[in-house]
Amino acid sequence: MNAGKKMLIGLHLGNGYGSQPGAWRMPGVDSKSYTSFDARVKQAQAAERGKLQFIFLPDGPGAIMADIETESPGFNLDVMLTLAAVARETEYIGLVATGSTTFNEPFNLARQSKALDIMSHGRAGWNAITSSGEDVAANYGKRIPSGEERYGRAHEVVQIIQALWGSWGKDAWVHDKETGQFAHKDQIIPINLQGKFVGSRGPLYIPPSEQGQPIIFHAGGSPNAYELAGRFANAVIGAAFTIEDARAQRNAFREAAKRFGREPDEIKYIPGLMTTIEKDRRTALDRRIQLTEHLFPQRVAYLQQMLGIPLDIKRLDEPLSKVQLDAARPSRYDPRSPHALQIAKQGWSLRDILAHGVIDYHPVIVGPGIEAADHMQAWFEAGAADGFWISPDVNSDGIDAFVDEVVPILQERRLFHQDYEGKTLREHLGVPDQYGIDPRVEELKYKTN
Amino acid sequence: MNAGKKMLIGLHLGNGYGSQPGAWRMPGVDSKSYTSFDARVKQAQAAERGKLQFIFLPDGPGAIMADIETESPGFNLDVMLTLAAVARETEYIGLVATGSTTFNEPFNLARQSKALDIMSHGRAGWNAITSSGEDVAANYGKRIPSGEERYGRAHEVVQIIQALWGSWGKDAWVHDKETGQFAHKDQIIPINLQGKFVGSRGPLYIPPSEQGQPIIFHAGGSPNAYELAGRFANAVIGAAFTIEDARAQRNAFREAAKRFGREPDEIKYIPGLMTTIEKDRRTALDRRIQLTEHLFPQRVAYLQQMLGIPLDIKRLDEPLSKVQLDAARPSRYDPRSPHALQIAKQGWSLRDILAHGVIDYHPVIVGPGIEAADHMQAWFEAGAADGFWISPDVNSDGIDAFVDEVVPILQERRLFHQDYEGKTLREHLGVPDQYGIDPRVEELKYKTN
Ligand SMILES: Cc1cc2nc3c(=O)[nH]c(=O)nc-3n(C[C@H](O)[C@H](O)[C@H](O)COP(=O)(O)O)c2cc1C
Ligand SMILES: Cc1cc2nc3c(=O)[nH]c(=O)nc-3n(C[C@H](O)[C@H](O)[C@H](O)COP(=O)(O)O)c2cc1C
Repeated sequence: MNAGKKMLIGLHLGNGYGSQPGAWRMPGVDSKSYTSFDARVKQAQAAERGKLQFIFLPDGPGAIMADIETESPGFNLDVMLTLAAVARETEYIGLVATGSTTFNEPFNLARQSKALDIMSHGRAGWNAITSSGEDVAANYGKRIPSGEERYGRAHEVVQIIQALWGSWGKDAWVHDKETGQFAHKDQIIPINLQGKFVGSRGPLYIPPSEQGQPIIFHAGGSPNAYELAGRFANAVIGAAFTIEDARAQRNAFREAAKRFGREPDEIKYIPGLMTTIEKDRRTALDRRIQLTEHLFPQRVAYLQQMLGIPLDIKRLDEPLSKVQLDAARPSRYDPRSPHALQIAKQGWSLRDILAHGVIDYHPVIVGPGIEAADHMQAWFEAGAADGFWISPDVNSDGIDAFVDEVVPILQERRLFHQDYEGKTLREHLGVPDQYGIDPRVEELKYKTN
Repeated sequence: MNAGKKMLIGLHLGNGYGSQPGAWRMPGVDSKSYTSFDARVKQAQAAERGKLQFIFLPDGPGAIMADIETESPGFNLDVMLTLAAVARETEYIGLVATGSTTFNEPFNLARQSKALDIMSHGRAGWNAITSSGEDVAANYGKRIPSGEERYGRAHEVVQIIQALWGSWGKDAWVHDKETGQFAHKDQIIPINLQGKFVGSRGPLYIPPSEQGQPIIFHAGGSPNAYELAGRFANAVIGAAFTIEDARAQRNAFREAAKRFGREPDEIKYIPGLMTTIEKDRRTALDRRIQLTEHLFPQRVAYLQQMLGIPLDIKRLDEPLSKVQLDAARPSRYDPRSPHALQIAKQGWSLRDILAHGVIDYHPVIVGPGIEAADHMQAWFEAGAADGFWISPDVNSDGIDAFVDEVVPILQERRLFHQDYEGKTLREHLGVPDQYGIDPRVEELKYKTN
C-alpha cells in the first residue's frame, strides 16, 4: 500500500535544548538556548536542510515544573515570536504553532497566525487545541470549562478564525499605483458571526498569503478530538506506542473526516517518534545514559510497576534474572509495558533497558539511523501513519543526526521526498490553497446588529 | 531650562508606507509594503542609523476604513510579529508595541511582550491602552465597557503583567552546566493575583531580560489617562497642536506621577510631529500636494468650517482675499484653526495652505530640516515635551530625510544625543532596570486557593 505516496516529517521544537531531560547540560549545548532565538533559527535551518515539511511547536503555559532546579521548562518562550524569527531566516519549512481555543480571543489568534502566514510567504499552520490543565487555566485566573464547553467553543473559534482568514477574497488586494486602486472593497467582507461562546464582526485587515490562509492542525486522541479534527484539520499531531494503536487512531480520524463529507486523505495522521541516533546501538545507549542517568532511581521504581516485578537499583549493570523475566507481566495500565519487557528479554542490563527509552512519551529509537528508518517504514506501510513528528534527544546535534543519518535512507527507499514540492505548507502537505469564507460557516448564528 | 538634558525621539511605524494618504502611490515606494516585513525592518534600520530611541507601533483593530478602495489601512498586520522581525535585524533601537488592556488576556500579553524583551535583549516597551472604539469591540464580539470598567481593568492588567514580568528574580536563572542547577526555584514566585476583572496565578516562565522587564508606555490625554500613566508609565505618546496645550498635558502627567509618589521626571511626555522634509518650503509643499491633492475637495470644505468663511475649490491657485481674511474667525472647536489662519495670512494659495498640513493629526513641518529642528527646540525648551514621535509623510525616503536633515542639527545644538547610551530601552530613556515584583501590587486581592 501507499505506493508512490511519501511520508511527512515534522520537527518538534520546544525549549531549545532537546526533548530529553539533561539535554541542556550536554557537551556542545549552549546552556542559554532557552532564551536564544538564534538557537531556534539554527535548529529550524537544520530541519530545512533535511527537507522536513514543518516544525511543530507545542504550547501550554502551565505551572512551573517541580524540577525547575535541574530542568528547563518544556516550551518556547512564545511560539509566535519564535516562528517569526524562524520565518525570517528560513525559506521552505512549514511553521506550526499551538494555540489554545479556550484562552485566546479568536480575533487575536486569527490576526497573528495570518500575519505569520504573510511573513513566511504561506508557511503557517495553527495547531488548534483546547487546553486541558487546571494549571494553565489558573494563569488566566480561570478554571478549565467542561469538555462540552471547551469543544463547543473550539468549534466556534475555528470557524470564526477561518472566516476572518478568508475575509479578503483572493483578488481583493490590488495595490495598483497606476490606477490608484488599493483594494476591492466588495471583496473584503465582514463576517458578522456570533456563536454561543464567541463572536466577531471582522473583516480582518490582512490579504491572502501565498497559500491563501494557514492550515489547521489538531493534537489529541479523544472522541472530541476526532470530531474537531475530522471537521477542520488537515493534520493531526498524534501519540501512539504501537502500530495497532496508531492505525486505530488514524482510522478514527479518517472516519471522522468522512462524517463531515471530506475525503479521508484530507487529514494526515502524524504520530511522534523520539530519536537518539548514533553510529551503533552501544554508542546511542551510552548517550542516553549520560542524558538521563540522574532519573534512573525514579525510573527503576516505575519500571517495577510496568513489569510487575521487584527491581534492584543497585543492580543497574545486570540483566534481569530468568526468575524475574519469568515472573514479569506487562502492566495493562501502561501501553509501553510489552515493549519494555521485550527489551528486557533481549538481555540488556537494567541500565540499558532504561536507556532504550522504554519510559518515554513516544516510541524511541536508540541506535543507528537505519533503525529509525525501519520503524518509520513499518508504520507508514502498515497504514499507521502519514508521517512522523520527530523529537531528537538533544537539538544541537540530534537534528543533524536525523537529517544526515535517517533522511537519506528514507529518500533512497522512496519513502520521503527528495526536495520541497513548493514553497507553501499547503504544497508540502498536498492541501489545496484556501480562499474566501466557507459557506458552511452560516451554521453559526448571525449577529442582529 | 533643560540644561544638558537631551530630547527623546521615536519613529511612528504604521502600515509600511508612511503617515500621509497617497504614500503608497509615491515614486520609489513598493506598493506591497503593507505586507512586507522587509520594508518594516529597513525603516527601523534607518531610524536606528539616526540614533532614534524607539519605534512606536500604534494599534487598534477596528473596522476596515471606508476609503480602502484607494487607501491602505493604518496599522501593522500584527505589532508583535513586526517587532519580532525588527528585533532580529536591529541592535539598539527600542521597540514599543501598543496592546489593549481590554481585549487581551493579561497572561498572553505578559508572555509575548516579555519574550520580545528577551528577543531584543532588553529593548521592549508596551503601550498600554484600553481601546475606545465600538468597531474594535465588535471584532471581539463585544461592546466597549464603560470608562470606569475599562480603566479599572487596565489598572489590574498592568499590575498583573508587571508582576508576571517580575516573577523570576534577577538571579533566578542559573543554567550552570557544571553544577547542574538550572534555576533557583525559590526565586521564581507565583503571583496569585486576582482583581475584580482579571487574575493570574503565574509565575511566567521567562527569566529577566537585559533591562529586567519591558517599560510601560501610555497614549492618551484624558483624566483616566493621567491616572493610569501617572501610576505606571515611563513615557506617554501624546498629541497636542500648541506649545501651551502640550505643556499643560505634560504638567498634568507630571502631577499625576507625583500623586503616586513618583518623581515627575520618571514620566516622559512625547507629543507627535509629522514631517515632510525637503530642501526648501516650495519643494516640500509640492511633495505634499502630490500626496494629498485627491483629498483637497473634502479638505476645502472642512477648512471653511475651521476659518468660518466660504472657500471656493475652483480657486486653489489663489491666496485668500483680504475680504476673506478679514472675515475669518478661527473655530473654537478645532485647535488647529488659529494656525491655519496664520498660514493663510502669510499669503499662500489655498492649495498651499492645505499643503502645509493645517488639517492633520499633529503639528506638521513642511520644509527644510531646520524648521523641524526649530519646532522641536522651541517645544522642548518651553517644557512642552521631553521628546517627539515622528510620523514621516512617506517611509521610503521620509525617514532618511529626517535622519539626515533634522537629526544632525539637533545634535549640533546639543539637544539630541550623539549615540546610544547603551543597548536597552531603559538606558535610552534613563529609566532604572526593573526586577522582581513591586510590593505595592498587594493592593490587589489575593486569591483564596
Ligand atoms: C500528541 C499530542 C500533543 C499535544 N499537544 C498539546 C499542546 O501542545 N498543548 C496543549 O495544551 N495540549 C496538547 N495536547 C492535549 C490535547 O489537545 C488534549 O487537550 C488532551 O489530549 C486532552 O483531551 P481532551 O481535550 O479531549 O480532554 C496534545 C495531545 C496529544 C495527544
Ligand atoms: C497620541 C495618541 C495615540 C493613541 N494611540 C492609540 C492606539 O495606538 N491604539 C488605541 O487603541 N488607542 C490609542 N489612543 C487612544 C487612547 O488610548 C484613548 O483610548 C483615547 O484617548 C480615549 O480616551 P479614554 O480611553 O480615556 O476614553 C491614542 C491616543 C492618543 C492621544
